[in-house]
Amino acid sequence: MTIIKRPRGTRDFLPEEMRKRSQARKAMQEVLCRWGYQEVATPTFEHLELFTEKSGASVIDEIYSFQDKGGRDLALRPELTAPVMRMFVSELQNSPKPLRLYYFGNCFRYERPQKGRFREFWQLGAELIGGARPDSEAEAIALADQLIRSAGIRGDIHLGYLGLIRAILERIEGDKRAAAMRMIDKKERSALKELLEDLDQGDLGLLELIDLKGKASLDKALEIAGDLLLTETQEASTGIGGPKACSEPKMQSEGRGSARNGRAVSSQLHLEEFQETVDLLGAYGVDFQIDFEIVRGLDYYSGTVFEIYAEGLGAQRQICGGGTYELSSLFGGKETSSTGFGLGFDRIMEIAHIMEERKPPVFLVYTPDVKVDAARIAVSLRRSVPTVLDVMGRSMGAQLKAASGAGARHAVIVGREELDSGRLILRDMSGGEQENLTLEEIVERLSRIYSSV
Amino acid sequence: MTIIKRPRGTRDFLPEEMRKRSQARKAMQEVLCRWGYQEVATPTFEHLELFTEKSGASVIDEIYSFQDKGGRDLALRPELTAPVMRMFVSELQNSPKPLRLYYFGNCFRYERPQKGRFREFWQLGAELIGGARPDSEAEAIALADQLIRSAGIRGDIHLGYLGLIRAILERIEGDKRAAAMRMIDKKERSALKELLEDLDQGDLGLLELIDLKGKASLDKALEIAGDLLLTETQEASTGIGGPKACSEPKMQSEGRGSARNGRAVSSQLHLEEFQETVDLLGAYGVDFQIDFEIVRGLDYYSGTVFEIYAEGLGAQRQICGGGTYELSSLFGGKETSSTGFGLGFDRIMEIAHIMEERKPPVFLVYTPDVKVDAARIAVSLRRSVPTVLDVMGRSMGAQLKAASGAGARHAVIVGREELDSGRLILRDMSGGEQENLTLEEIVERLSRIYSSV
Repeated sequence: MTIIKRPRGTRDFLPEEMRKRSQARKAMQEVLCRWGYQEVATPTFEHLELFTEKSGASVIDEIYSFQDKGGRDLALRPELTAPVMRMFVSELQNSPKPLRLYYFGNCFRYERPQKGRFREFWQLGAELIGGARPDSEAEAIALADQLIRSAGIRGDIHLGYLGLIRAILERIEGDKRAAAMRMIDKKERSALKELLEDLDQGDLGLLELIDLKGKASLDKALEIAGDLLLTETQEASTGIGGPKACSEPKMQSEGRGSARNGRAVSSQLHLEEFQETVDLLGAYGVDFQIDFEIVRGLDYYSGTVFEIYAEGLGAQRQICGGGTYELSSLFGGKETSSTGFGLGFDRIMEIAHIMEERKPPVFLVYTPDVKVDAARIAVSLRRSVPTVLDVMGRSMGAQLKAASGAGARHAVIVGREELDSGRLILRDMSGGEQENLTLEEIVERLSRIYSSV
Repeated sequence: MTIIKRPRGTRDFLPEEMRKRSQARKAMQEVLCRWGYQEVATPTFEHLELFTEKSGASVIDEIYSFQDKGGRDLALRPELTAPVMRMFVSELQNSPKPLRLYYFGNCFRYERPQKGRFREFWQLGAELIGGARPDSEAEAIALADQLIRSAGIRGDIHLGYLGLIRAILERIEGDKRAAAMRMIDKKERSALKELLEDLDQGDLGLLELIDLKGKASLDKALEIAGDLLLTETQEASTGIGGPKACSEPKMQSEGRGSARNGRAVSSQLHLEEFQETVDLLGAYGVDFQIDFEIVRGLDYYSGTVFEIYAEGLGAQRQICGGGTYELSSLFGGKETSSTGFGLGFDRIMEIAHIMEERKPPVFLVYTPDVKVDAARIAVSLRRSVPTVLDVMGRSMGAQLKAASGAGARHAVIVGREELDSGRLILRDMSGGEQENLTLEEIVERLSRIYSSV
């Protein structure tokens, strides 16, 4: 008979840890409610193709996939955006937009367990479906900021803009484009440099762009974008711009209205939207820095992307990632832009500052001869007061000792004498003071103290 | 591009359903807190052997089992008692007893989906570890009763006593014993009758016993037990009884003290304990019926077992099952008796009466020119009031229409004029009345209405 262990990379949550997690979750749910977000839940496993459609076949290596007894390829969900969008397409597509949804769920990832990385982990995330880009992005980022603060954490928010990066990459040959994107994402700077040096047209401002950090970088980015648009216009002056393409006052005021028909750029580059996201974030009181190196490494993102980092977590500092994406059409629905993010709940719990709220239950201590009466008294107390009753046949002394051991603040003591007199003993466990009170008086006294548990 | 469906037998939970489920869960968690129970959580998958050790290899057919990439045989948990006891053995064995733990978690079962039966389903359960049998059983059953009531349901509680059934079955040859137990569990009455008719010693009162229903059946059961003990004594008058064996006043008062040394019976039959459980349940105010046909069909149960049934569920009427069991030693721990139960949360939700608590968020309606100011105002409102802000660039009329559509009770309206005057418009969406108030006045007014959301 060997002890069966829990599977590698998974965790048990004992009462104290669970209490902390519940409190943090509750605090975050309160914030989500105040922002008008509603909870949804999806199955723990999905058809494997849901995740390969979204992220490519390479994700299979890290996915817990298996065949069920009916031969279906299933996968324990590695993340929750794809399931929520699958649900949206099949069940919520005709609901009034925008939809504000959130989830709190466990996800699975087959990889070498290490500090702060588990094979089963929890994500809390929100998806704002069907809104306009800048407004939705500002709301999502401000909400993520508030959620983290509700756990007593301050994070560094980094904001990138894929529109500009992609506009530049569109000028690189197709096969090198994906490689360059991956190098930016993985911060492989020297490889990226090498790749760009081989290009005829030079590095296109890309290296300069991803080196930009901080708020002032937006102006500099506008300059780089301007140069780019100018080249575009010279090269393809007869291109047809989309309806929204670069017709914004911001770009015009920068003196680049002439660039409005640059074809390759028009589909991606809406720097004026990014500017609006930035302005709205200011109004929300969110502190952030612009960082064009943030690209999230996944094709379905567009527009603004962001990541949040926190101190105290060692190498695994990222606690949140998100942005604007289009997945609905990939799953067979109408094209619908969404903005969302996922928070790494486990990492947040590692550094969260949660006030312990717990009041241990009251111990109802009794002599063996009045056990049945004690059960009756427990019924009355439990209407408003957390109460435990000995179930081990212990002496009163042992019961009081157990109460102390459990950190109880109060004990109610009852024996034959107390029953006959109609007055039970209320004992303050810290000082040891005892009072003789009726059950009603005790209930009234204790329910005031314990009702907020 | 085909629409990817969710896997067969699983469900998505949309906001309205999720709200109902959260409310029911919260109500139950409040009850559990008042009974001194603390939440724990275990991994979603375990080593397969945890469940085959507990329930035998036959469970594999219904388990979602798979090999991970490291070749480990894993299983999505089909239930939560085994994981909690595994956790107890490895992490809580040395904590002060008794432990009062509860869990709320999803479980998995590979079987044909049908009404009320899903492949992923939720269980809420409690385990009282290390207490004495009658006290723990009464507490667990009374707690289950309260939990069900907190969801607005009344259930029929059926109480069985395995001690007596096993004492009778011990007189049957080993190979027929298991078959008889299975027949009782599956209510295969005619097969059971046939099996018993083949026995030399007759049916031993078994058929009479499992036909007993209702409270009066305890007296009749005592009679059957008495006859049994009498036969035992005649057959094996030199047997040695265990320390607790039948030395109880109750049995003596029934004039069967002479049976106290019946060996085969002594290890199982503690009818006086069952009597005490019954008495305590009376004190707890629990309505129940005795039903010796309840045997739970699993070897690790001993003593009292119970099941709760509810109306309105069709064929799948059982919403709760539990009893006293010994699993700790099976998983390599010290022998520790536990009493627990699991509630079928999904079935409960089908018939639960939950008061809808939701107040839809306040809509902050604005003209496009004051969007940034509206974001600032939203920050103030959201400190205490659920607030949504348009993210679709809609006109004020469209925003008000969306507010109505969402069932909002209040809208706050702001344009350039309101900003300049410092007085925003608070609109009552039901009657259409509007008032001009400062932001502070609005926050004060609304936070009183929405703070309890």
